[in-house]
Amino acid sequence: MLISFDSLTHQFETILLKQGFPKNKAELCAEIFAGNSRDGVHSHGANRFPVFIEHVKEKLINVDAEPAVINREGVTENWDGNLAPGMYTATLAMQRAIELSKENNIGCVTVKNTNHWMRGGTYGWQAANANCIGICITNTIANMPPWGGTEPRLGNNPIVVAVPRNEGHVVLDMAMSQFSYGKLQEYQFANKDLPVPGGYDENGVLTTDPNKIKVSRRTLPMGYWKGSGLSLMLDVLVAGLSGGKTVAQITAQKKEYGLSQIFICIDAQNLSSSIVEEIIAFTKSGNDTSVRYPGEQVLATRKKSLEKGIVVNDKIWEQLVNL
Amino acid sequence: MLISFDSLTHQFETILLKQGFPKNKAELCAEIFAGNSRDGVHSHGANRFPVFIEHVKEKLINVDAEPAVINREGVTENWDGNLAPGMYTATLAMQRAIELSKENNIGCVTVKNTNHWMRGGTYGWQAANANCIGICITNTIANMPPWGGTEPRLGNNPIVVAVPRNEGHVVLDMAMSQFSYGKLQEYQFANKDLPVPGGYDENGVLTTDPNKIKVSRRTLPMGYWKGSGLSLMLDVLVAGLSGGKTVAQITAQKKEYGLSQIFICIDAQNLSSSIVEEIIAFTKSGNDTSVRYPGEQVLATRKKSLEKGIVVNDKIWEQLVNL
Repeated sequence: MLISFDSLTHQFETILLKQGFPKNKAELCAEIFAGNSRDGVHSHGANRFPVFIEHVKEKLINVDAEPAVINREGVTENWDGNLAPGMYTATLAMQRAIELSKENNIGCVTVKNTNHWMRGGTYGWQAANANCIGICITNTIANMPPWGGTEPRLGNNPIVVAVPRNEGHVVLDMAMSQFSYGKLQEYQFANKDLPVPGGYDENGVLTTDPNKIKVSRRTLPMGYWKGSGLSLMLDVLVAGLSGGKTVAQITAQKKEYGLSQIFICIDAQNLSSSIVEEIIAFTKSGNDTSVRYPGEQVLATRKKSLEKGIVVNDKIWEQLVNL
Repeated sequence: MLISFDSLTHQFETILLKQGFPKNKAELCAEIFAGNSRDGVHSHGANRFPVFIEHVKEKLINVDAEPAVINREGVTENWDGNLAPGMYTATLAMQRAIELSKENNIGCVTVKNTNHWMRGGTYGWQAANANCIGICITNTIANMPPWGGTEPRLGNNPIVVAVPRNEGHVVLDMAMSQFSYGKLQEYQFANKDLPVPGGYDENGVLTTDPNKIKVSRRTLPMGYWKGSGLSLMLDVLVAGLSGGKTVAQITAQKKEYGLSQIFICIDAQNLSSSIVEEIIAFTKSGNDTSVRYPGEQVLATRKKSLEKGIVVNDKIWEQLVNL
């Protein structure tokens, strides 16, 4: 079904208030969930909301907690997320990184003991809206075997890189596996094979069959050894710099909470917008019209959602109404 | 054949002095070329040296030039490389980023109009040796079609992420194509297929045959759309922040010179070394012994080279002796 942005936001906010969220956090989190669905990232919008509420009920997320600044060194602040809602803390942390970058060209906030930020792109758009280049990274529970291995020991560890642009920001939001479990499910629902191999079957053979990958639990790192190596590095960066939990420690908890994240901003006041335009134009030139820049599809989906309503899965909407 | 590190360095230095390099630059560049071969990165060590000398003779590289600081904003310095030897400028820029990070936790140097840095990992090791996390990025001439396209419009745009560690630094040195042209050549020489698809044949079908990919010139971005998007973002970052040339502008020159680069350091004094050890141990646990952390293989090769001598291709050595 199609729901307007305002109605969806209102629905989320009502539920969050019922769960004891203070007004300011309920508003912010509702808007982020609705925004993710609006931008077509259903897996971290409406489809994820019931799981988020479960985590609130299990007290993995502390609705009353506030993140705290532990210390500051140069242009970097180290925060403790105190298990507050991850989207709330991520928004505050990126806001602070923006401020620090306006003073010193670069600003950085590390956060330990935080929670899932849902869609990382949210904070990339936030930075770009403030005319900053934004980079943010999170770790996750282990959900991918390293290259050459069979046991899941690496997180998906998404990284976001966002660059401001008048005609629509360029935002790359990229997890380290070629396909997330959410994406595999989409292909399962549609009864389709993946366009390229996304993991192994139970015999250790690369496959495009999402069902076989969900059975083996052996998703493929993007770029094979490259995504595997980058995933490890990103965990080192977020856990090492924040002093927070590693993928190993999160995995030992069995449940995904208490994550480590980092938010970096570079002031883009001197970034030449013509350079960005030129790069996009050159990339598309002489190529098929399907060649897109990162974030281009998001913007098209956003426009459509705001005009015609946000696509929400019927069963999910039924769940939301009953929450 | 096997050549000692000192002999190889001496051979390079002698040639560079003959080409008019000032003593300090000849020493530094010779040591970097020899170090790249020592670490097993032959494509940017001895094997590349004859091409480097060609570029010096063509005056694409200005042996007498010095990079200049254009301005400073906060923790960031903007440099003009003035087409000096790329390895020389990259070393100075990373050194300055290290200094800036010791003062402010983070330091950044952008460089425009610089030249090929050969192996990016060199500057990652440099940062890690100074107990810094080092991140550096360069753009290149267009050598890879974007995802969904057929015409080369993206650079390989390598990114390096290095983390200091007592037992041997963790250094990821990663280009945006799944296989570089140098790697394709290695497989051709060995008459082997690639372990995974590395590009398209002339009919647009994914292939593991390096010969077919070299004919079509359609290399595959690592992680398909992911590496394609990241390559574009990295060009935006280096060209946008340095005010230097984009992949498009470098490609228009027909020759690869006047590149844009960025060097970022984060002081690692508070980085917990136990966290890095734990991440490596967990990644390997329960998995095949072939699972490695980024840089592990480099260190093993370095040890072997220093003990037994550096492997240098016979024909390349013959070329070096006659240069």
